[in-house]
Amino acid sequence: MNRVGVLTGGGDCSGLNPAIRAIVRTAARANWEVLGFLRGWKGLLQNETRPIGADGIDDLIARGGTVLGTSRTNPYKEKDGATRIQRVLETNHLNALIAIGGEDTLGVAAKLFEELKIPIVGVPKTIDNDLDATDFTIGFYSAVQIVTDSIDQLKTTAESHDRVMIVEIMGRHAGWLATYGGIAGGADVILVPEFPMTLTQICEAVELCRKRGKRYAIIAVAEGAKVIAENGHEIAEQSHEAVDAFDHVSLGGIGEVLRDLIKGKTGWDTRSTALGHVQRGGSPAAFDRILGTAYGVRAMELVLKGEFGKMPAHWQGQLTAVPLKAAVGKLKTLSPALYDLAKGFFG
Amino acid sequence: MNRVGVLTGGGDCSGLNPAIRAIVRTAARANWEVLGFLRGWKGLLQNETRPIGADGIDDLIARGGTVLGTSRTNPYKEKDGATRIQRVLETNHLNALIAIGGEDTLGVAAKLFEELKIPIVGVPKTIDNDLDATDFTIGFYSAVQIVTDSIDQLKTTAESHDRVMIVEIMGRHAGWLATYGGIAGGADVILVPEFPMTLTQICEAVELCRKRGKRYAIIAVAEGAKVIAENGHEIAEQSHEAVDAFDHVSLGGIGEVLRDLIKGKTGWDTRSTALGHVQRGGSPAAFDRILGTAYGVRAMELVLKGEFGKMPAHWQGQLTAVPLKAAVGKLKTLSPALYDLAKGFFG
Amino acid sequence: MNRVGVLTGGGDCSGLNPAIRAIVRTAARANWEVLGFLRGWKGLLQNETRPIGADGIDDLIARGGTVLGTSRTNPYKEKDGATRIQRVLETNHLNALIAIGGEDTLGVAAKLFEELKIPIVGVPKTIDNDLDATDFTIGFYSAVQIVTDSIDQLKTTAESHDRVMIVEIMGRHAGWLATYGGIAGGADVILVPEFPMTLTQICEAVELCRKRGKRYAIIAVAEGAKVIAENGHEIAEQSHEAVDAFDHVSLGGIGEVLRDLIKGKTGWDTRSTALGHVQRGGSPAAFDRILGTAYGVRAMELVLKGEFGKMPAHWQGQLTAVPLKAAVGKLKTLSPALYDLAKGFFG
Amino acid sequence: MNRVGVLTGGGDCSGLNPAIRAIVRTAARANWEVLGFLRGWKGLLQNETRPIGADGIDDLIARGGTVLGTSRTNPYKEKDGATRIQRVLETNHLNALIAIGGEDTLGVAAKLFEELKIPIVGVPKTIDNDLDATDFTIGFYSAVQIVTDSIDQLKTTAESHDRVMIVEIMGRHAGWLATYGGIAGGADVILVPEFPMTLTQICEAVELCRKRGKRYAIIAVAEGAKVIAENGHEIAEQSHEAVDAFDHVSLGGIGEVLRDLIKGKTGWDTRSTALGHVQRGGSPAAFDRILGTAYGVRAMELVLKGEFGKMPAHWQGQLTAVPLKAAVGKLKTLSPALYDLAKGFFG
Repeated sequence: MNRVGVLTGGGDCSGLNPAIRAIVRTAARANWEVLGFLRGWKGLLQNETRPIGADGIDDLIARGGTVLGTSRTNPYKEKDGATRIQRVLETNHLNALIAIGGEDTLGVAAKLFEELKIPIVGVPKTIDNDLDATDFTIGFYSAVQIVTDSIDQLKTTAESHDRVMIVEIMGRHAGWLATYGGIAGGADVILVPEFPMTLTQICEAVELCRKRGKRYAIIAVAEGAKVIAENGHEIAEQSHEAVDAFDHVSLGGIGEVLRDLIKGKTGWDTRSTALGHVQRGGSPAAFDRILGTAYGVRAMELVLKGEFGKMPAHWQGQLTAVPLKAAVGKLKTLSPALYDLAKGFFG
Repeated sequence: MNRVGVLTGGGDCSGLNPAIRAIVRTAARANWEVLGFLRGWKGLLQNETRPIGADGIDDLIARGGTVLGTSRTNPYKEKDGATRIQRVLETNHLNALIAIGGEDTLGVAAKLFEELKIPIVGVPKTIDNDLDATDFTIGFYSAVQIVTDSIDQLKTTAESHDRVMIVEIMGRHAGWLATYGGIAGGADVILVPEFPMTLTQICEAVELCRKRGKRYAIIAVAEGAKVIAENGHEIAEQSHEAVDAFDHVSLGGIGEVLRDLIKGKTGWDTRSTALGHVQRGGSPAAFDRILGTAYGVRAMELVLKGEFGKMPAHWQGQLTAVPLKAAVGKLKTLSPALYDLAKGFFG
Repeated sequence: MNRVGVLTGGGDCSGLNPAIRAIVRTAARANWEVLGFLRGWKGLLQNETRPIGADGIDDLIARGGTVLGTSRTNPYKEKDGATRIQRVLETNHLNALIAIGGEDTLGVAAKLFEELKIPIVGVPKTIDNDLDATDFTIGFYSAVQIVTDSIDQLKTTAESHDRVMIVEIMGRHAGWLATYGGIAGGADVILVPEFPMTLTQICEAVELCRKRGKRYAIIAVAEGAKVIAENGHEIAEQSHEAVDAFDHVSLGGIGEVLRDLIKGKTGWDTRSTALGHVQRGGSPAAFDRILGTAYGVRAMELVLKGEFGKMPAHWQGQLTAVPLKAAVGKLKTLSPALYDLAKGFFG
Repeated sequence: MNRVGVLTGGGDCSGLNPAIRAIVRTAARANWEVLGFLRGWKGLLQNETRPIGADGIDDLIARGGTVLGTSRTNPYKEKDGATRIQRVLETNHLNALIAIGGEDTLGVAAKLFEELKIPIVGVPKTIDNDLDATDFTIGFYSAVQIVTDSIDQLKTTAESHDRVMIVEIMGRHAGWLATYGGIAGGADVILVPEFPMTLTQICEAVELCRKRGKRYAIIAVAEGAKVIAENGHEIAEQSHEAVDAFDHVSLGGIGEVLRDLIKGKTGWDTRSTALGHVQRGGSPAAFDRILGTAYGVRAMELVLKGEFGKMPAHWQGQLTAVPLKAAVGKLKTLSPALYDLAKGFFG
């Protein structure tokens, strides 16, 4: 019987389990067996496996995270990593491997396919949505919904206390999550890595909220947002310098730095909340259940057709397949058109 | 000062208020005033208005339904309807009108534009997602999420009681909502108007669930689903005949008819729940807040550019604008590729 | 090693799994084994079992329904039921049995304890909250939250369409769920079995909503609500007669009957939604996770102390234990004080 | 016409708006007018008011925070604060005042009643639930539900990465929220201010999770939890000393300190998330809507009966009224019985 291996690598997110379920159900219909590797490339290197049959997996559609576990292990940083992988696949009599992951996991997959001709298919996931060659990655929308719900919650407390509330959102290199979540949460300012804003512009927007009669302002800020202080320095990088003029500055994330700066400049009571790990978790939103299912089915279909070195993708509204190397070459940064749309609501 | 009128028509849904908010904020930035008409075309015919300023509307991003109210009134079925509309717009010194609605509302808008050259822009909404020329309509995804959550809830009770649970979902003419919701809910069978299934096929799928060791089965059925009874007749249309052989058949919706037929044929305890009006309501999902915002901004931009007779649309992953008459010509029925994907999980 | 059996009987609800988990964890700490019986008394009669160890059950805290399955089988209606139960318990070398259920399940438990001295402890559950001798039963609050969320959703659509929206809520004999859910949902009228209202009073309340400037009215109605028609007859019982004067009356639940009557009398567009099975399902609310956990721990402690014929209960704010026969003697009907409180918001 | 003033003071929470709505509706039925003071005692001192009629307030049942705004201003720390309050009440021809708040707000209310005979009634609220003389305060349960949902989300990511996840929960002086939320979230350790645990005990519990086959452990920690380091010092107070032996210790909240200590001692990948301000916000849970409504009604009834210097309370399962000074004398710390129950699930 033909057999396909599956692993999930990198940061976990919602929608991985629906993808695993879809791979297994599609494989079962084609009479293939599925062998799961535990904890991403790490488990593959150590041949830690778990067979997954088509029975008893139906609840995966509603389950967050990944039943296979995950890790950030990169086999190319391990001694003989690539050849050990090849050997483990042979030992288990696998005809193919499906690697579900982001930039790093799929980068490894692309390399294993290019260099060793390992029959690999990828599945794109990241809550950052910054993987190239696909409009959407698994996990992104569920995180958007969590950010939106959190902003809804923060709004009632901000309004009750006449506060500026800063919400720090995942995204070191791309502002997709902060922008989608910020628009949906009705944020008054959205700060991202791609389009710098000055502290002065931010405070002007906050003041505008007041003039419009609002009792509060919400600032959605990506972890890696670029904010320029009055001295022209970038706050994230030079935070010590930039905030020297203000007392009691805590050296936390960008949210905490901004909190003190904005409070200092506007006089408004300002608070910051970093959403943290909750953004990755919980039962997947309908969107990611459907996307995960579609990607899982298509990934297995690519395997069945022998189209390796590819991944399913969502491109211009269509489900399609693209070469792995097209996805991992460079970061997909935030669309200027989308950020422009968001800016129309600043202040 | 330039002025634009806004109305919402047809069945309400989640995402209308974010669109209204976006229109008002975009208008304000261009120094236009916004005049709301209450209850769709009905309020316009009767000149029932409510001015909406840019202050105090920020909470609309999170609010379901429509603050303007809605109705199913069709001015073309009222005496002198079209000319009365023309007159009310003149009386209020309006430069343009934005009509947010589905097939009917936008059909009227297209006609008023074609016949009387009224400067109208549309915005597409319907939880059925069956409007042509756009991939997504406002309200659809929020309904998908509600259906998904409801199936999650029904699953625990179905599993506890070893039951077949039928969930009746809105959709008289198109199966988009049942299919998206059914995939996301992990339904074991999905029944839609576009692709008929026989009662025998349905029961076979239910039996397959048992064989796979499941203690329950979920059947997602669109209100207008086509199911063929053993005598070859369509159940929805000919339900009396088709079910004559079974006792105690209630004459409710398709869900209740199926309940008795499936119970009779498989012997499984079978229950039916019609989700009903909850599918339209509640705070909009992030998806519809973003879509409503994007459509609202673009609709107002079309007004500002004088591009009338159009509506913003989501086409192949891009925000674009299409002629109203392209949207209302015919129904956008369920994609065969999507239904095929769903079928891979039947049984 | 000592062993305790566990079963869940009657209609399922949220909070059963947390109770099972608590029993198992508490048993494990005392070095007892737990044997689950499948599908309530039915599985016990047939000796269908499933051992449950303390490992791998942690996710039960968040899972709706019951992993043991349930049924409405009453052993006293089966031939030699009681003695067969005694025999199965002996066969499995069980020192005690914990029966989780409502009126029926606990009624059987009380009888088995009284008549055959079977060492039984009960755990009270029912979404109706109508079990005597305890303030709260497992599953009640989760259902209250679902009813509340559903009314929130129905409100936006009711408001958008200027409608009276009737929401039919579980409760054939008691109005606890309708009243708690109705208060929390901000219902304008709440109809229950315990305190009859006339159709005239209902319509007056609806009219009052209009006078207060509301664009809608919400009527929360328990399935078994007593409503008196203008001819003095009770509508639920005599619905055919009572509604004879109105056309197009569907013969559905009380919600549908009321819909036509209220529409006829007030002229308001009136709709009805029966929440149905969703009220039982989904992940338990925090309240039921805590209550289920507390009841589970105490039930096992009663077993360990040899205090049989009892069940844990919530009485006047305290966790306590009461004799089973005190719980099943008569129905705990709705508190007049609570209904009075609710009535302060009618109209 | 008789008039009553209303204010909300201290930290905001979910359930305040339902209480305001209930006061207004109850007042209206008795033909009393309601005058809201903005931002707690601060607005009262400055005579900043907002009349609230019974129309247009129905949506308050579902709205988080307080429409009146709030502040932490204490009139006894302002020059002539008490007499200025007396004067503002006279200026507005108020017959009574209802103060909704926690320890501080109600402490002021008690003093104003005792010293100046001002006709005041209180309403107890705090998400910490540490107010004496009442079992439950407004806002507590909604926060419990948010903590529970957050732990559910954190669990999937913890499990996917084989992590210990620490969740930092509000509660500087009392562990009610951490304990209720921790039990409902299925936490493996709960740390509170009332019952100290040693770092060694914590790490043993974490190791036990592993032995039970769990891939993760959840630690719920109240902000003010007492944890004893190996040197016998309390970590929260002496964190610098206590953690000196470990590198890279960030000086954040207790969660971050513990993260590094536990990681150092157990070798498990350990992460920390502080839930922050989201715990106060969002639409109130059904529980707080009902509690807020009941408290609001009773508070206004106390006013109508002239029973001043009291507040409605939930005592031993009954709605009752207690003297304000009984509530503010001392902190209601966590019940040992409840913490014992929780401890049964540690490890």
